[in-house]
Amino acid sequence: MDDGHFADRLMAEIERKQSQVVVGLDPRLDKLPATVCEAAYTEYGETPRAAADAIVAFNRAVIGAVAEHAVAVKPQIAFYERFGVEGVRAYAASVRAARKAGLIVIGDVKRNDIASTAAAYAAGHLGGVPGGVPQSDDFVVDALTVNPYLGLDGVAPFLEAAEPGGRGVFALVKTSNPSSADIQDLDCGGRPLYRRVAELVEQWGAAHRGGSGYSLLGAVVGATFPEELAALRRAMPHTPLLVPGFGAQGGGVSDVLGAFDEDGLGAVVSSSRGIILAWQRAPYDRQYGEANWQEAVAAAAGEMRRSLWDATH
Amino acid sequence: MDDGHFADRLMAEIERKQSQVVVGLDPRLDKLPATVCEAAYTEYGETPRAAADAIVAFNRAVIGAVAEHAVAVKPQIAFYERFGVEGVRAYAASVRAARKAGLIVIGDVKRNDIASTAAAYAAGHLGGVPGGVPQSDDFVVDALTVNPYLGLDGVAPFLEAAEPGGRGVFALVKTSNPSSADIQDLDCGGRPLYRRVAELVEQWGAAHRGGSGYSLLGAVVGATFPEELAALRRAMPHTPLLVPGFGAQGGGVSDVLGAFDEDGLGAVVSSSRGIILAWQRAPYDRQYGEANWQEAVAAAAGEMRRSLWDATH
Repeated sequence: MDDGHFADRLMAEIERKQSQVVVGLDPRLDKLPATVCEAAYTEYGETPRAAADAIVAFNRAVIGAVAEHAVAVKPQIAFYERFGVEGVRAYAASVRAARKAGLIVIGDVKRNDIASTAAAYAAGHLGGVPGGVPQSDDFVVDALTVNPYLGLDGVAPFLEAAEPGGRGVFALVKTSNPSSADIQDLDCGGRPLYRRVAELVEQWGAAHRGGSGYSLLGAVVGATFPEELAALRRAMPHTPLLVPGFGAQGGGVSDVLGAFDEDGLGAVVSSSRGIILAWQRAPYDRQYGEANWQEAVAAAAGEMRRSLWDATH
Repeated sequence: MDDGHFADRLMAEIERKQSQVVVGLDPRLDKLPATVCEAAYTEYGETPRAAADAIVAFNRAVIGAVAEHAVAVKPQIAFYERFGVEGVRAYAASVRAARKAGLIVIGDVKRNDIASTAAAYAAGHLGGVPGGVPQSDDFVVDALTVNPYLGLDGVAPFLEAAEPGGRGVFALVKTSNPSSADIQDLDCGGRPLYRRVAELVEQWGAAHRGGSGYSLLGAVVGATFPEELAALRRAMPHTPLLVPGFGAQGGGVSDVLGAFDEDGLGAVVSSSRGIILAWQRAPYDRQYGEANWQEAVAAAAGEMRRSLWDATH
């Protein structure tokens, strides 16, 4: 997993698996199958330790169900941090389980800071710090998300840490939430701010392109703004796109088609609740139900894979 | 520590201690006193566990040295995350030690995400989630920093979680790093973006003001841009300012005076390396040296407290 260039590796995996699917591992404890939680609560009571164990058990089952359908998983670290030290231990265990299953892991951490601090985050989440200092690989992922508000010197340490290990970075450009307009759509010289941020991201990534033509610096662009998504694909021709907001947040297949290049590459689409809680919604609720929740997860991931692949090929 | 309104509590502590000083707890392992690291390495080898133990020992000594001079400490979580699960265990232990010493703790985490995810971060770092779900207080701090790029619905969950426990939030407005101009200074209708962000922050915090007139939503404005700092103080009259970049990053007393209101309140100034590594620089290197590093830390914190207080009173 650690060789070559991140974008080349990502595109090759998309073609090998015929999948542009990223499964978001955002475990909401109150939504997990009762059997998963009960086992942990019986052993540890209603404690962070029990929450962490339930999350790991759930994620392992999800990973097993989606491994053949998804190109990557995207654990959202907030849902782990909320349970403290035990929670981030569950994050580390989930990352390891996903990598062992051959999945690319995109840590959705949205880290950001000034250069010396960004370098510390990069060491923790992308590894690759030269000897001397004790190094932990607990949180090391194949790629992570960053927030670009601090500018290049807050992003460059992530690019430098990512390059040698074949890892990648996705910078927020236009997020999927309703309030993303508050700042990202502010008028900057006749264009919304996010268009200017997109230019910067394309430019920052220029020195980090692989054989596929794509940079190891990608961009996060929400599925909930289809026109902006297509415009941003054109504005950032060398920037891989990570497209969240598919499924539960409202984006459908037709909304994300603009994210792909003419080969159906250049983008991956992320769904969380729509996949990992599939048995709670039609048609999977009646077809599988909670008793066969893992099969529902596999079916939903397979359906998302096919619908995206067919629409782009 | 958990009663009342965050801004009222912060202003009262500033007056009680006659201090506007925040000490940044950013432990860079290669800079710590040799004795601190050696003890940990002897016991655990060059492992993340040893790094974590060294950091906690160092922070406890720093906290003891600065408790009477500083109003708050600001652990930067990146320097803990880089050592994985053991590292964040050290973060949790450092937060506990600082609160026990009567210091306000500002978690410098710069978290940011869409609403449902921001709520999970808020639960982990600000606590206050109503029953049912296991709750960890490992990472719970008095206030935390957030990145506003996602707009109000990414910030509101932090405000909602902060209010009941008397906790606070500081949103990035103008950061102290050189590249902060890349995005924050982009021209938005004749004014730099950060001025528009400042307006939004003042507006978002309006419903959360305390008896002091200040909101529990503060703003981060770097000490390295003195004119902008004074302009932002005027533009955000109800927003407490957290001013990093003092000391090692280049800001001095005259650079930060514009951050305060006419009573010398409304702002706190953060220094990290300038205080916690004081024995490595003049005049403290000759006066104390590494052997008496804790006294050097206390002296530097005391000197910063006095110079800021005298200049504002």
